[in-house]
Order: sequence, then structure tokens, then C-alpha cells
Amino acid sequence: MPQGQPSVVPNDGLTTRQRRNRPLVFVHTGQGKGKSTAAFGLALRAWNQGWPVGVFQFVKSAKWKVGEERALKVLGESGEGGTVAWHKMGEGWSWVQRDIASSEDAAREGWEQVKRDLAAETYKLLVLDEFAYPLKWGWIDTDEVVSVLRDRPGTQHVVITGRGAPEALLDFADLVTDMTKVKHPMDEGQKGQRGIEW
Amino acid sequence: MPQGQPSVVPNDGLTTRQRRNRPLVFVHTGQGKGKSTAAFGLALRAWNQGWPVGVFQFVKSAKWKVGEERALKVLGESGEGGTVAWHKMGEGWSWVQRDIASSEDAAREGWEQVKRDLAAETYKLLVLDEFAYPLKWGWIDTDEVVSVLRDRPGTQHVVITGRGAPEALLDFADLVTDMTKVKHPMDEGQKGQRGIEW
Repeated sequence: MPQGQPSVVPNDGLTTRQRRNRPLVFVHTGQGKGKSTAAFGLALRAWNQGWPVGVFQFVKSAKWKVGEERALKVLGESGEGGTVAWHKMGEGWSWVQRDIASSEDAAREGWEQVKRDLAAETYKLLVLDEFAYPLKWGWIDTDEVVSVLRDRPGTQHVVITGRGAPEALLDFADLVTDMTKVKHPMDEGQKGQRGIEW
Repeated sequence: MPQGQPSVVPNDGLTTRQRRNRPLVFVHTGQGKGKSTAAFGLALRAWNQGWPVGVFQFVKSAKWKVGEERALKVLGESGEGGTVAWHKMGEGWSWVQRDIASSEDAAREGWEQVKRDLAAETYKLLVLDEFAYPLKWGWIDTDEVVSVLRDRPGTQHVVITGRGAPEALLDFADLVTDMTKVKHPMDEGQKGQRGIEW
């Protein structure tokens, strides 16, 4: 809430304004729905502020989240808010010209580009969608990720989604929400449907 | 996941296609962040399908969620996907001409309009943002809400957000996610910031 009052004032040598504008790392994890959808919801706020938004989809399928992708592209091209760049591992990252042998290599290529964009301060909000998986599987070193995020220049907010995000990342993150599944229609024999699941 | 296989096939007399296209009620509840942002993320998918989307914000402040509101309005007017109607309790509902005495009355006016729109099948996705509160506070009768939702005609998906959603609603809903707060920057003395909290 905009009017929210912090319950503790930390002894970190920062003014309230400095603390307020501190760049944040968000993690949306857990077994329930809403991890990525909430990340794309955050992208709407960033767009409204005129921020450049970069989305990196660390998933195999190129077809995932076509609704969000199209919506954010239309917003990015509307000339009203910020720009949106959408990068998909599932189609082979656009900046990689050669064939990528494995998902593991593809995930690493994605992370290398994220590192370059963080160094260049290309975006003000980065959505690393499903990035928890390559970390969980050990394809990308979590300690390196934490270290790169800790040292990133400027004001770059980063949202990481996916189940089973490693503890070291949760420890480092500023905000962690666990989307806890209470009930899901697939438990009762319903398949995913257009407009709802994608 | 689009390719997700249900773990159980129910004995409900429906075909897979009928079951797949069954209208759903979602509840996003819990203490953590992401309840509303995930609802607006779902609205992006609905927009992409060309569905008319209706948002009813059951909150006092007219300033809440300005980012999501502007983004969805730009999308609704882009001529590319579905339409978006955005209704705010905080400004006094647009269809109410007289002064509304209390938040309780305002919430009830909102629910009356939702009932009319459900009966008329005005939208294909309805986002009842923060609607859990008037239910929790007893301003609107949860049993009536469940009964109206159960009997709604056609294919109308409904998303309800807010902390402390009543059990009877959770029991009835098709999908419930509890956004569980693991860590939040306000716990460490950080105030909300532009582009992130609103």
C-alpha cells in the first residue's frame, strides 16, 4: 500500500528517500498459480512509469504466455508508457546466431545476456521468468547470480519466478512471495483452457 | 501448463471439452503480495483472447493501481484484443448518481452492478479486486455471492482478490491461491515506491 508505514526503521545509514528508491529483487516461488502473472502485473506498473522493461523467458516452449507477450508488446509500442523487450529461450534467443545444443546451454546464454544488460543498465525492470529452474537444476550457479545482482549498478529492479527457488536466492531477495496452491481445477480433472492458462 | 494432464478424471457427466471450457471462479487470497497483480495478469490473457473484461475495484482510494488501470485501458482501446471496462468504488461508481453514505453502501452498490452484469453476460472475465474485504466484514452476504456465482449464465470467469476470503467462498471456488508472504521490504523499514507498489 502506498500509505504503508514500515514497522522497523533500519540502521543502514540511508535516508528514507534513498531506501525508498532502493532497487529491489523479487522472487515469486511456490507450487501455486500466479507467480508469472504477478510478475507481468508488475511490468504493467513499470510500463506506466515509462520504464524500459526487459522480459527473459527461461522456458523451452516458444508458445508460453503468448497473451502476456502480445499485451506487453502492444503497450510497449503504444507510445504511452515505457518500452518492452521480450526475449524467448524457446525460440532460441534472438541474439544467438548458432544452434544451441541443449536447454542447459540455452539457459546459460540467457543469463549471459542478462549480465550484459545489467552492466549496461538496459532496463529498469527485468522479469526473469521461470529462472528459478536453471538455478534449482544447477545449470547456472546461484552464488554467481546473487553476486551479480548484489553488484548491479543503478536502479534496476529484478523479478525472478519459478518453483523451488534456491535458499541462497531467497535469503538475498528483498521480497519473496510463495504462491501456495490451495485448490486447482486440474486436481479435479480439468485441463488447462485458452485465456486462462495461456 | 497447456500440456498439463489432469491427475483424476471426474465422474461429472461432462466431456473433456465441456469440462475444459467450464467457467471458473478464482480466489487470490493470503498475506503476501501478488493477489491483484496476478489478477491483472490474467486480464492480459483474457484481453489477448478478445474477451470483454470488466474490472470492479472494491477499494476506497481512487488512486490505487493506476498503472494497471492505464495499461488495461490502453490495451482495451488498441483495437487489437478485447475491451476493458474499469469501475472504481473509490471515485463513486460511475453508474451511481447520488452520494453514497458509507463504504459499506458503496461496496453493496458494486455488488448489485456485478449481479446485473453477470445476468446480462456483459463480460467474459470479471476481476472483483479486493472483494474479499466486504465479504469478510459481512457487508455483503457470502452465501448470496456463492449462489449468484453458482447460477451465473454462460461462460463468465470471475477472479476475486483480497486477504481473508471467507471459507464458504474458498470451498466454492475452482482455483484458490494463497499468496504467502515470506519476506517483504516494508518489514525492513522500506516504504512503498513508485512503479513497484502502485
